[in-house]
Amino acid sequence: MKTIEGGVCAAQGFSAHGLHCGIRKNTSKNDLSLIYSEVPCSAAAVYTTNLVKGAPLTVTKQHLQNGIAQAIICNSGNANTCNADGIEIAEKMSGLTAGELSLSPDDIVVASTGVIGLPLPVEPIEAALPALVQGLNPNGSHEAALGIMTTDTIAKEVAVEFTLGGKTCHIGGIAKGSGMIHPDMATMLVFLTSDVAIEPGLLQKALSGDIQSTFNMLSIDGDTSTNDMVVILANGKADNPAISDDSEDFKTFMKALNTVTVELCRMIAGDGEGATKLLECIVSGARDEATAKTVAKSVICSSLLKAAMFGADANWGRVLCAIGYSGADVDVMKIDVSFRSGKGEILVCKNGAGVAFSEETAKEILLEKEIEILVDLNSGDISSTAWGCDLTYDYVRINGDYRT
Amino acid sequence: MKTIEGGVCAAQGFSAHGLHCGIRKNTSKNDLSLIYSEVPCSAAAVYTTNLVKGAPLTVTKQHLQNGIAQAIICNSGNANTCNADGIEIAEKMSGLTAGELSLSPDDIVVASTGVIGLPLPVEPIEAALPALVQGLNPNGSHEAALGIMTTDTIAKEVAVEFTLGGKTCHIGGIAKGSGMIHPDMATMLVFLTSDVAIEPGLLQKALSGDIQSTFNMLSIDGDTSTNDMVVILANGKADNPAISDDSEDFKTFMKALNTVTVELCRMIAGDGEGATKLLECIVSGARDEATAKTVAKSVICSSLLKAAMFGADANWGRVLCAIGYSGADVDVMKIDVSFRSGKGEILVCKNGAGVAFSEETAKEILLEKEIEILVDLNSGDISSTAWGCDLTYDYVRINGDYRT
Repeated sequence: MKTIEGGVCAAQGFSAHGLHCGIRKNTSKNDLSLIYSEVPCSAAAVYTTNLVKGAPLTVTKQHLQNGIAQAIICNSGNANTCNADGIEIAEKMSGLTAGELSLSPDDIVVASTGVIGLPLPVEPIEAALPALVQGLNPNGSHEAALGIMTTDTIAKEVAVEFTLGGKTCHIGGIAKGSGMIHPDMATMLVFLTSDVAIEPGLLQKALSGDIQSTFNMLSIDGDTSTNDMVVILANGKADNPAISDDSEDFKTFMKALNTVTVELCRMIAGDGEGATKLLECIVSGARDEATAKTVAKSVICSSLLKAAMFGADANWGRVLCAIGYSGADVDVMKIDVSFRSGKGEILVCKNGAGVAFSEETAKEILLEKEIEILVDLNSGDISSTAWGCDLTYDYVRINGDYRT
Repeated sequence: MKTIEGGVCAAQGFSAHGLHCGIRKNTSKNDLSLIYSEVPCSAAAVYTTNLVKGAPLTVTKQHLQNGIAQAIICNSGNANTCNADGIEIAEKMSGLTAGELSLSPDDIVVASTGVIGLPLPVEPIEAALPALVQGLNPNGSHEAALGIMTTDTIAKEVAVEFTLGGKTCHIGGIAKGSGMIHPDMATMLVFLTSDVAIEPGLLQKALSGDIQSTFNMLSIDGDTSTNDMVVILANGKADNPAISDDSEDFKTFMKALNTVTVELCRMIAGDGEGATKLLECIVSGARDEATAKTVAKSVICSSLLKAAMFGADANWGRVLCAIGYSGADVDVMKIDVSFRSGKGEILVCKNGAGVAFSEETAKEILLEKEIEILVDLNSGDISSTAWGCDLTYDYVRINGDYRT
């Protein structure tokens, strides 16, 4: 397996485009994106568990009931959530897209991201659709990635190439997500494409399984978005032999999918609102997976630890504190904690109590951009990783006046 | 019932004092406090539910097994938590205090607050104890309140006077708490005193009941401290007739207690780390108490809403978002949201969707120092309140480099 360029267009038969249609005030920013497959695809999705759901999610869920889709339309700048006419607008949006692409409306995935509670005007989308469709091209992933960004500072694209039954296959993806991100739910918007031949049920199984250790282990700020969804389309263009459940090919597909989703998690976490650092909490020595995950997520969600990491302060007491209130049944007296980065690794806590360490070395390690918080529970052999970012002045600035 | 001055010394027979003993570097800040009753008291306490517990909590729990105590010793600047010799040091601290006051060690409540994982030297405490005891006086509440502060910017004292069986009674308290505060646990350090005659079991019942709607509904940052405790001492000096379970007198006592604890909650929330605003989320129209509490806490804990309040931004979508992921079973389509302050009240969401409102009026309301977020679930007649504060640049600054 190798990482390649191309994002959502890396898989054969996919094209994409993005442009500014006028929902966002800033005319230099794309606010409408389209991803299209030449042929119908197996489609699978996971959605936010927030009771307050964006209207596009309701419409998409309905469209994906048959496990088939062929295009994804998404706007940024407005979430189309908590609006009286939300469903109507989301249906118009997919209907207009279907018309322009000569598809059935139920082959369209529709998504929106941005401010909640502001009516979404459909006119700018309607006016821009002909140009959006005309602009579809196999190098369009980057423009599409730009079109789904909100407070993101970088476009997020990943793709991998791998082999199934002698055929070259691909999975690629784009993602947006910077704030309102919390584990135990699907996270923000992630659109994945593949040319693998796989039936919809198995594709859903692959996606639902994968997110448990990827997007559900990612937290920026503990706020679960109303508009999160992860969608994968697989169009079969790779012409691989049909994948059956529990086969080696399915494992290979899962591994390729995981490579893409983990990298997108790291990109989303590293580009968290206001973030200056990517944090990874790697818990090992757990007696079971639930314990490992609970501990890793609790550490990565601690506002106090996140602020300490921003200040490059080796305040390991906050790691123990977060483990202690996580709800996981752990033996505090067995816990070891280390910090690691490109500058080295330092043990700061052994058997639940502090050890002498060089504050200068710790500072040097924590001044790096990617920090690993290593927690060994010394009670088993199960591991888990969670991703997050530091808490900074800029998170407060960005969210103190998001709507203006 | 009326609010009076005097804090923990408002109740008859109590004296207090606080001074700088040398645990904190800044010599102008008190770091050691003592509260003393002339006679043994009924004592009750609640503790953090964090698995990582400060050593003083273990020692205090043991001392309060008989429901009796007579003094509280507390240092700030060091939490005496996650230290190999923690229990030994906490026992020394209470033993030395007992010796100086000619009491038994198990009549001493011992508490510590500050940095986790740094050995606590007992020498400065030992050296300062004679002066601390000598300084005990009936106007000493303020010095004691200063001595338990960490990142607090104001000393927190409250007291009320009320009547039981014709006798004048008092409950007073001091509190510290600014960061690492989260509901569903006892919160930070709260020391309450009363001259009411009440047996220990009933006192514990009163305290355990009260905190469910007070300290357990308070969140600054979602991090649950390792050293939280709320302790109440009642010495019987008011000479009121014995209070029995479910009597009118017990209700009066509960009401007085609640007046003190609610005011301390408001003080703690308003003085949250870096806070510029006190936030109160008042949920009404809930079908049951669990729903009302879950919703109120979820709203008050949302980082995104807290940042919006800092920016005086009427971003009500974040209120709905936080209700949606709270886990409470609510009908989103029935929810109304308003913001209220000394400048007025404004409806921003009706039946789960936005309503037109004046952004200028909303801004004017949200620029005040005390903001109420009113959520009506329109599904019953149960209400609940949670307290919190805004998320500011200063929270990040304070916690980016807490240890130095």
